[in-house]
Amino acid sequence: MSEKKDLQDCVEELRRERAQCSFDVEELTNIFDGGKELTARRREIERLICSDPAFKDEVPPEYLSHEDLYTNKVRKVTHLMRKLAEHNISLREATITEVQSLLRDGNPLGVHSSMFANALASLANPKQQQQWVPLAEKNRIIGTYAQTEIGHGTFVRGLETTAIFDPETKEFVLHSPTITSTKWWPGGLGKTANAAIVMAQLYTQGKCYGPHPFFVQLRDFDTHCSLPGVILGEIGPRLGINSQDNGYLRFDHYRIPRTNMLMRHSQVLEDGSYVKPIHNKLSYGTMVWTRVAIVHNCSKKLACAVTIATRYSAVRHQSELMPGKPEPQILEYQTQQYKLLPHIASVFAILFSASSVLRMQRIVAASISKGNVELLPELHILSCAMKALSSQDSTQGIETCRLACGGHGYIASSGLPSLYTSTTCTITYEGENTVLLLQVARYLIKSYRAGLKGLPVLPSVMYLTAPPAMHQSPPLSNQALIEAFRISSANLVKETESRLCRQFNLEQNFYYAWNHCSVALVHCAELHSRYYMCEKFLSTVESIRASDRVRSVLQDLCRLYLIHHTTLNQGHFLRSGTLSGADLSTLEEEMYELLAKLRPQAVPLVDAFDFQDELLGSTLGAWDGRVYERLYEEAQKSPLNKTDVSKAYHKYLQPLMKSNL
Amino acid sequence: MSEKKDLQDCVEELRRERAQCSFDVEELTNIFDGGKELTARRREIERLICSDPAFKDEVPPEYLSHEDLYTNKVRKVTHLMRKLAEHNISLREATITEVQSLLRDGNPLGVHSSMFANALASLANPKQQQQWVPLAEKNRIIGTYAQTEIGHGTFVRGLETTAIFDPETKEFVLHSPTITSTKWWPGGLGKTANAAIVMAQLYTQGKCYGPHPFFVQLRDFDTHCSLPGVILGEIGPRLGINSQDNGYLRFDHYRIPRTNMLMRHSQVLEDGSYVKPIHNKLSYGTMVWTRVAIVHNCSKKLACAVTIATRYSAVRHQSELMPGKPEPQILEYQTQQYKLLPHIASVFAILFSASSVLRMQRIVAASISKGNVELLPELHILSCAMKALSSQDSTQGIETCRLACGGHGYIASSGLPSLYTSTTCTITYEGENTVLLLQVARYLIKSYRAGLKGLPVLPSVMYLTAPPAMHQSPPLSNQALIEAFRISSANLVKETESRLCRQFNLEQNFYYAWNHCSVALVHCAELHSRYYMCEKFLSTVESIRASDRVRSVLQDLCRLYLIHHTTLNQGHFLRSGTLSGADLSTLEEEMYELLAKLRPQAVPLVDAFDFQDELLGSTLGAWDGRVYERLYEEAQKSPLNKTDVSKAYHKYLQPLMKSNL
Ligand SMILES: Cc1cc2nc3c(=O)[nH]c(=O)nc-3n(C[C@H](O)[C@H](O)[C@H](O)COP(=O)(O)OP(=O)(O)OC[C@H]3O[C@@H](n4cnc5c(N)ncnc54)[C@H](O)[C@@H]3O)c2cc1C
Ligand SMILES: Cc1cc2nc3c(=O)[nH]c(=O)nc-3n(C[C@H](O)[C@H](O)[C@H](O)COP(=O)(O)OP(=O)(O)OC[C@H]3O[C@@H](n4cnc5c(N)ncnc54)[C@H](O)[C@@H]3O)c2cc1C
Repeated sequence: MSEKKDLQDCVEELRRERAQCSFDVEELTNIFDGGKELTARRREIERLICSDPAFKDEVPPEYLSHEDLYTNKVRKVTHLMRKLAEHNISLREATITEVQSLLRDGNPLGVHSSMFANALASLANPKQQQQWVPLAEKNRIIGTYAQTEIGHGTFVRGLETTAIFDPETKEFVLHSPTITSTKWWPGGLGKTANAAIVMAQLYTQGKCYGPHPFFVQLRDFDTHCSLPGVILGEIGPRLGINSQDNGYLRFDHYRIPRTNMLMRHSQVLEDGSYVKPIHNKLSYGTMVWTRVAIVHNCSKKLACAVTIATRYSAVRHQSELMPGKPEPQILEYQTQQYKLLPHIASVFAILFSASSVLRMQRIVAASISKGNVELLPELHILSCAMKALSSQDSTQGIETCRLACGGHGYIASSGLPSLYTSTTCTITYEGENTVLLLQVARYLIKSYRAGLKGLPVLPSVMYLTAPPAMHQSPPLSNQALIEAFRISSANLVKETESRLCRQFNLEQNFYYAWNHCSVALVHCAELHSRYYMCEKFLSTVESIRASDRVRSVLQDLCRLYLIHHTTLNQGHFLRSGTLSGADLSTLEEEMYELLAKLRPQAVPLVDAFDFQDELLGSTLGAWDGRVYERLYEEAQKSPLNKTDVSKAYHKYLQPLMKSNL
Repeated sequence: MSEKKDLQDCVEELRRERAQCSFDVEELTNIFDGGKELTARRREIERLICSDPAFKDEVPPEYLSHEDLYTNKVRKVTHLMRKLAEHNISLREATITEVQSLLRDGNPLGVHSSMFANALASLANPKQQQQWVPLAEKNRIIGTYAQTEIGHGTFVRGLETTAIFDPETKEFVLHSPTITSTKWWPGGLGKTANAAIVMAQLYTQGKCYGPHPFFVQLRDFDTHCSLPGVILGEIGPRLGINSQDNGYLRFDHYRIPRTNMLMRHSQVLEDGSYVKPIHNKLSYGTMVWTRVAIVHNCSKKLACAVTIATRYSAVRHQSELMPGKPEPQILEYQTQQYKLLPHIASVFAILFSASSVLRMQRIVAASISKGNVELLPELHILSCAMKALSSQDSTQGIETCRLACGGHGYIASSGLPSLYTSTTCTITYEGENTVLLLQVARYLIKSYRAGLKGLPVLPSVMYLTAPPAMHQSPPLSNQALIEAFRISSANLVKETESRLCRQFNLEQNFYYAWNHCSVALVHCAELHSRYYMCEKFLSTVESIRASDRVRSVLQDLCRLYLIHHTTLNQGHFLRSGTLSGADLSTLEEEMYELLAKLRPQAVPLVDAFDFQDELLGSTLGAWDGRVYERLYEEAQKSPLNKTDVSKAYHKYLQPLMKSNL
């Protein structure tokens, strides 16, 4: 390891695992980070942060009350901001590192430094940016992004908060007319933010123009007191990310200047007249960026989870493989390999898809700057597809890793519970997955129908009607599997489209017919998205610049990924006639061989993710494998363990035990 | 509703849903409870408990520190024990009710009143029972069940705690020789219990006889101080059930009388000689009982989750079905119906399988009393299979329900997070699922091989080699689907057995071959178990004594369940040739029709589960559907909302914001 960790410091099991490594771990780390320089810079920043005792908790946060949890997190995040600033590290740069994990379980400034900053950059006009961006960067303004209402999430047009232009005073009057119009969820809104970008229905000259963004001050910039007309607070505890003070917000005829409407795209002039945006879809840009960031983050979270579970599985001995022989490392069990290795592969699949969407975004941005917006929908749809798939895959993968650690995976100190609770919410926010997949499906059906009519369709969906000439790929080769994916996906879209037509003939209403087919449509979107992910994994591995040994282990992971997802989707392959039962048996057999082949590389592979112990924060996953000692030491920190007899005994237990009931 | 709830009290959406009910809700409630009398008694007890203000929390537990959470739970559970005793309600009887949900998220006396009590009853001899059972019933002794060690869970023979008989003093010396021998996990062990049944390796006359149970006093019965030689504490926070004070325990040459060994099955005599048990498998009884209790509890937990998500889906309006039309109830979306209705069906499938295992247990007990233990393995395997499947199904079902509520499902006050965190651990304890499924698989392979040789096999697995003569069932009828399940399962077992033989020929080692096939073997076990569950659901519905209307809605649910699991397992059906792609399309179409047909019954169906609001504990799922008001009111309880400006602001935020960094 480049960090020059001494193999003597780790338990024998891990020493043996590391000794059998077939590739250069550091090289794979560079690939994971996106380059040698990024690895170096990441390590530099992480070293700076990890060495700072202010980030260590004497009492782990899980023991704290909700309020103390928040206070402690504010302490940490403000210290982090200060520290980064002192060392001239921008927040954007810090995202290449894992220092965010220090703030695991949510962060009251998270939305401020991501969504709020992005929204300002993309929705405010240059003058507004001049006014607010420097203040936000200096943390004079701490902002949040307030779109969702208690009654309105997915359907933005349904928002009820109103912003009515008053030409008299040249102000907007913000108001929350109903309980369902209460803003609900924004991160940091409860106690931390003093401003927000608020989405509200814009009314001017008696007409409603739909939801528009406004910059709204919520608290006094000096005293931090909430301003008159602003009612806010936090929404209470959640499954996870409990120190993020997600909040609620109501307006009581609250006035803001006209110039607080974010006017980059649309405007309201002094006389109240409305100027509409030039292009409708330009705001897709931020959404794509945010979704790609989620995808990227999902792969990191999953990487943490497989690191923990894989190292633990190498240290843990349990049960018998051969009667009478010593208990084997549980990593020897094929079922255990099957729980872990496909998710190690998945980390790369998700990461490489994120990169491919980013590359495409750069191409699209370039063509937009030349006035060409043709590729925008394709980019949008791909980002929906990848966000849906990767949030699902990483959530399920993390949960599988947690369960693969048996009882110990359920303990907070394993780090797995908070990985799960902070990842599962990506299924819901930034576009609820079912809703996103239905958008993907709509695009598939539209493109399929266009293709049938001979109209031009975009590259990623051409295969639906014009399957590329069958390669002469050897049967069951990677290329053959990708082709089989393509044919099965095209087949499913075709069948679903016929179902849609049949249903339309019955109901004579497109929307009812659409709804009647929506479960099938979601399956279409999933299969297409999976095909895309497989294809990106394969093409990245085929073109990657790497040594033979690194390429070889990546090829094995890619092959495992392809076969695994082929078997998971076997129904579609069988129904499209692209694979037979015998083919599937052959593939299964190869998968079992691959599990055995990759098993000795499992620990080196997760070592390559290169998570510092302090950032991984896991008793089960630390580099040295001292699992049981750490579990025991962590337990000693429980405040309940400070006294032998608890106060609950004296107050409640003793009276019961002695009552002779 | 028999509780004479007034429809006027609920929101209009739910009023409409309830008006379109096609069956007698009360009748279905009786079926769910197991009889009219049980419903009545359950309601009586629940009324008593729910009306008691001591069970209401001013500050919801999620806001408390770990320590306060524990103290508050001890307060509640001791109050509950007292209250039940005052009204002569046994704990056993209380389990028919949902009063346990008051103690949601774990209960420090949970293991005392279940596993400890059961273990005493089944492992102690009559004299020992006389000595300890009355004390336990009076709560003078509060016990736990300490088997798992930090290094040893699944593999009980690997336990390291030793109990060495000292013939001099006629005592056992308990000792924890290593860190891995530390007892770890027992519920209530940390701070609550003063005694435990401890599993330890029994040594006498220089020989080890394997793990045996001992009754061990841990704390002084008067002062509650831990006794010299006993080192214990709690293991720290977990994903859920955080007020259960799961603990750790070490012994330092701790002495207990010889007569503290639980001697119902084996004994150590005064001279140290060991007397072995008459029958090895008799202790299966408790395990079966515990697993059936888990299965039953899983169906209740899942029923809670679908109640919450279904009512919420009837109240929630979101997005557009028809452009320009008002936002529909989300229950109108087929994708939403698909998320919920199969899990409503699943509640019954799990419940009916639990009943069928219980019925079988009674038969087996009767035949054991006549000296016939032949059916015991079958009972054991069925209980493994049902525990594995139902813990998995309910966990996934609860999570699907949570996600189906969008963002609000992530809020603690929805009740869904704690349902999830308290159910997922059933996958791990009382036999980790993978391990259980491999046991089922072993039984399947053994029975298949026996069947091939013409040896007798037990009823549930006869189909593997002697498929019953094809009924003349109409194609795709319920009977035909069950037959298809049977044939596919037999086919999968056959193929896996050949794979096992092939592998054995390669490796010449049965255990390596077994491991190489273990992923496939788990699939065999899952398919067989699913077949069993489908079969039990169908046969129960076919023979149920119920009105036509109730039977009809149960038949629809059962049909939905069968088709749903057929489509989920389509690969197996296609590969066995029992169903074609066209058959599957037909079934899918029927499934979509069934979703539409059952949709109007969704709310009445969950009403039939008859959870009192106080016990359901959900802002989203309360009977009256006042979702948004409740969410808002709950948020007001946050301690952070007691002041406008938090102390974190003054201490940490303000300095950062004004620092001009
Ligand atoms: C942890 C977390 C942080 C958040 N942070 C912020 C924030 O900072 N700022 C902010 O503004 N918001 C935030 N949100 C809110 C988030 O954006 C919404 O929760 C999300 O958009 C989903 O909307 P919803 O909750 O209204 O779900 P709903 O849309 O109500 O979904 C409920 C169910 O209805 C289904 N459904 C809805 N529409 C359709 C349809 N057309 N077709 C089929 N099915 C449909 C869904 O599939 C789902 O099953 C946050 C949420 C969470 C959980
Ligand atoms: C909430 C909770 C409460 C508990 N309460 C109690 C209690 O009151 N008293 C008590 O004594 N214990 C208790 N336990 C402990 C529980 O019984 C164990 O966690 C459980 O038996 C699983 O064992 P393990 O944790 O050692 O998992 P392991 O056996 O270490 O499992 C880890 C992984 O190894 C795999 N594995 C293990 N053996 C095999 C094999 N032979 N073949 C293939 N794969 C294998 C598993 O599938 C899993 O993926 C509790 C646990 C929890 C989570």
